[in-house]
Amino acid sequence: MEKLKLLSLYADFRKDLAYIEKELEKSVDSSSPIIRQASLHLLRAGGKRIRPIFVILASKFGDYSLERVSKVAVSLELIHMASLVHDDVIDNSDMRRGFETVKSKWNNRIAMYTGDFIFSKALISIGEIEHAGVHRLLAETMLEICKGEIIQIDYQQKLDQSLRDYLRRIKRKTALLLSSSCELGALVSGADSSLVRKMRRFGYFAGMAYQIVDDILDITATDEQLGKPAGSDLMNGHVTLPILYIKDDPDFKPYMLKSFDGSLTEKERGEMLSYIRNSGAIEKAQAISDRYLSKAVAELKALPDGDAKKALLQIASFIGKRNY
Amino acid sequence: MEKLKLLSLYADFRKDLAYIEKELEKSVDSSSPIIRQASLHLLRAGGKRIRPIFVILASKFGDYSLERVSKVAVSLELIHMASLVHDDVIDNSDMRRGFETVKSKWNNRIAMYTGDFIFSKALISIGEIEHAGVHRLLAETMLEICKGEIIQIDYQQKLDQSLRDYLRRIKRKTALLLSSSCELGALVSGADSSLVRKMRRFGYFAGMAYQIVDDILDITATDEQLGKPAGSDLMNGHVTLPILYIKDDPDFKPYMLKSFDGSLTEKERGEMLSYIRNSGAIEKAQAISDRYLSKAVAELKALPDGDAKKALLQIASFIGKRNY
Repeated sequence: MEKLKLLSLYADFRKDLAYIEKELEKSVDSSSPIIRQASLHLLRAGGKRIRPIFVILASKFGDYSLERVSKVAVSLELIHMASLVHDDVIDNSDMRRGFETVKSKWNNRIAMYTGDFIFSKALISIGEIEHAGVHRLLAETMLEICKGEIIQIDYQQKLDQSLRDYLRRIKRKTALLLSSSCELGALVSGADSSLVRKMRRFGYFAGMAYQIVDDILDITATDEQLGKPAGSDLMNGHVTLPILYIKDDPDFKPYMLKSFDGSLTEKERGEMLSYIRNSGAIEKAQAISDRYLSKAVAELKALPDGDAKKALLQIASFIGKRNY
Repeated sequence: MEKLKLLSLYADFRKDLAYIEKELEKSVDSSSPIIRQASLHLLRAGGKRIRPIFVILASKFGDYSLERVSKVAVSLELIHMASLVHDDVIDNSDMRRGFETVKSKWNNRIAMYTGDFIFSKALISIGEIEHAGVHRLLAETMLEICKGEIIQIDYQQKLDQSLRDYLRRIKRKTALLLSSSCELGALVSGADSSLVRKMRRFGYFAGMAYQIVDDILDITATDEQLGKPAGSDLMNGHVTLPILYIKDDPDFKPYMLKSFDGSLTEKERGEMLSYIRNSGAIEKAQAISDRYLSKAVAELKALPDGDAKKALLQIASFIGKRNY
């Protein structure tokens, strides 16, 4: 039902989203067959296009221009895509959203350069907007994302880490780009600075909640829903929020260590997921996500009523309850 | 002797270069120890800093500001560094300029992210200049470089390729960034459009010559001069200009195929290098480089006389005769 609601919400902006989708396809066109195929493969593997949606909605509070909105949205979605291709190399992932990854369908080298190519295309798209503040914000966002990826490597398989370490990691991994999507949408449409700030904060809080839910789903959803094996995060050495709550449990620890060293059997993976699901860790993680969502919703309070505000509230509600 | 000349030429701009060097070091500072170490390692492995030098010299024809020049120079040198780290992953290279590569000292993943990090830092540096044309040019340059890297993969170990294929490849690999260094230097110092165009063309022609000489040196220089085994290009599957002239020679072909599949012995490597050196291919390649250099020098003719013009002429002469 939540999925349905989200679809109907997207429907109001479907025309604009379809335009952005076309621009995304155009932007990754290349005379090199490999790079075109790899980029289109990535694009078609989809994703929820949350960054474009946030750019559109944030822009509705200012002077909306689809052309400007599209350039920003394309740029942000491309940066997101580029970082995913590189992440798959880091994590040695073969599947993402039910599709083979670029590094698996081709190889690590092609994945690295496809990422670089898409990254450059993102700069071309944003470069068409003459707004120094926009360029600066984008550059800083990309820098923080890159730093985040390195920090993610530093913390792989590391058991001695705090809630703060985790939150800092997902901030860079997810919240920053969503925050920048909202901020840039408001910025390019010339919204006033208090609104720009509110949108940035909304995107940040919503992004934190989104990633926590993502990390929960990695444990609670089925392989089919995820399009990859449940528990992948742990098998890639990523200690997510639910795991933080349970990592010192002596009955759980052996599963975790086996996940890290790759010796976990399929049967043990099932047992491990059940164990986490019944440990109370999921509920604790959900509570933190809910707190972020309340903060996100609070930022919207003072915004002018209308379709955009309604849609943002619906997205916040969707984030809290989504199961895919 | 040529080396000495170049050093004395650099001396005139040593203070500005030293300032840029400090800014480069500052720019790759990071709170992540791995990334800081890897970036500093790269920076200290050096390079001739030709891009910063070109930015400085091109800026001398306009309204010179060390602060602006430095931001552009730092950005271009960082893009160059980032592309080298990624190239080493592609080529699986363990040594560069006598230093271990990042991918060898750490691993491919760290190399990929160090490249991304440095790439973002380049954007931050250029982002501090408010000039839409500068941002656009930089984005387009980066895009063409990325495309070039993919094309380079497409052409690895490919024997059926023409002079045109080779020239297109080195244009993207080297000439474009040198061309943009000259163009951006002129652009940020507000030089008039005819001068900007001349500098761009000078950088392009000089860059083409530079890369051809680089490809010649890979065969004619010693392992010690190169800081890596002579013949590395061929062993990485890159068909360079001298090889284009000799690739169909039946006495040479077995060496080439062994280079490609990694079965070349040390003794055979020595024989192969001698064979190429004595085949006439080097002289033919040198003649093409010389033609580009003449074109570069011709672009300088109409420029106002002075230290900057003199230095550019000296660099052109150095490129033609360098042996390291």
